[in-house]
Amino acid sequence: MAARTEDAISDSGTPAGSLRSVATRERILEVAERLFAENGIFAVSNRQVSEAAGQGNNAAVGYHFGTKIDLLRAIVNKHAAPIEQKRKELLADVKGSTDLRDWITCLVRASTDHYNELTGPAWYARFSVQLMADPTLRAVVYEDVSSSELLQKMLGALAACLPDMPDDVRRARGEMARYVMLHMCAERERLLAGEETVEVSSWDDFTTDIVDALVGLWSAPVTR
Amino acid sequence: MAARTEDAISDSGTPAGSLRSVATRERILEVAERLFAENGIFAVSNRQVSEAAGQGNNAAVGYHFGTKIDLLRAIVNKHAAPIEQKRKELLADVKGSTDLRDWITCLVRASTDHYNELTGPAWYARFSVQLMADPTLRAVVYEDVSSSELLQKMLGALAACLPDMPDDVRRARGEMARYVMLHMCAERERLLAGEETVEVSSWDDFTTDIVDALVGLWSAPVTR
Repeated sequence: MAARTEDAISDSGTPAGSLRSVATRERILEVAERLFAENGIFAVSNRQVSEAAGQGNNAAVGYHFGTKIDLLRAIVNKHAAPIEQKRKELLADVKGSTDLRDWITCLVRASTDHYNELTGPAWYARFSVQLMADPTLRAVVYEDVSSSELLQKMLGALAACLPDMPDDVRRARGEMARYVMLHMCAERERLLAGEETVEVSSWDDFTTDIVDALVGLWSAPVTR
Repeated sequence: MAARTEDAISDSGTPAGSLRSVATRERILEVAERLFAENGIFAVSNRQVSEAAGQGNNAAVGYHFGTKIDLLRAIVNKHAAPIEQKRKELLADVKGSTDLRDWITCLVRASTDHYNELTGPAWYARFSVQLMADPTLRAVVYEDVSSSELLQKMLGALAACLPDMPDDVRRARGEMARYVMLHMCAERERLLAGEETVEVSSWDDFTTDIVDALVGLWSAPVTR
């Protein structure tokens, strides 16, 4: 609370001050996402994030965001809005389709198009992998993202393409697909961030490769 | 070092003492795996593990294992040996086969048969998911497990069933398959560990469902 008051005075409520505050928040979000992706969410303290963001006051994360969980949630929300916008556009493209591949493409591209549009190095997939893996964070931060209405609409249309598949098999394949998408994006980030020069496929080929594999996964005969 | 000397005296080198020491190590490994799976690897301290294992000396983890990384490695090694044994048996069964499904079954069952044979509640898949997601731990603890010669033999035989597939596509699908297996096992653990009574498929059906999906994933046409 002391930090909050102090900062409120220095930012003084002027337009310049609040612009500065927005810029600081953005800077902290970016630095935090990078540090978490590269070093691990739990290995990096709020103090380290504040310092790496060039904040003289090493309680800056606390002042601008609150707890670490609040900071994690802010990073997730920063990406949730553009991904939701992508979903809207993609849904408009395939409206009414009964082709499984169309709906899988829709699901995959909502993520890969978003990653593709991030400028510079990306960290969000590696960050998300950690959220999904941690039992506490997964519940607190991530579950509300998967409740998106547009996402549910896509999954519903995809299910309608597979009318004879038992519900539990379809649910299981949906989970498999989610992990495939997330982890392949994270692997790609790792490759691109590595020190060695590696050949990385274009975003289009990358997306097509995932869609190919998931069409196979989703349409495979159920033998049990 | 002080703890080590003290403990050496109390265990006194007698057969009873070393039996007690083996039992303590096993108790610590089990408790650590459970706490890490349920609460997250970084949220749980060595001291908490020592206490939960009923050790009066809360430096017990340090004495018996060393650092936290050493403890994590010991948990991985505890499972690596029986999984390797499974691989040996499964390889003997399908030797010489050129059927893709045989090799995928082999890969999947090396893990699912091991999980199936763990008695009581299981935590290892949820624990492994965290190791794989964390950039530091993945490098330190997990990579040497994937260098198993028998695993490489299976992957080689599987590749031979797909002679026309570009190398990079096959590698990517291999990674997808690895994530699918690991995360589906972790989801199953979560379901079984949850407080609600849920219907969970048998290990056989669970394994068949994963194999079905991965046969589809691996044999899907490459369209790019």
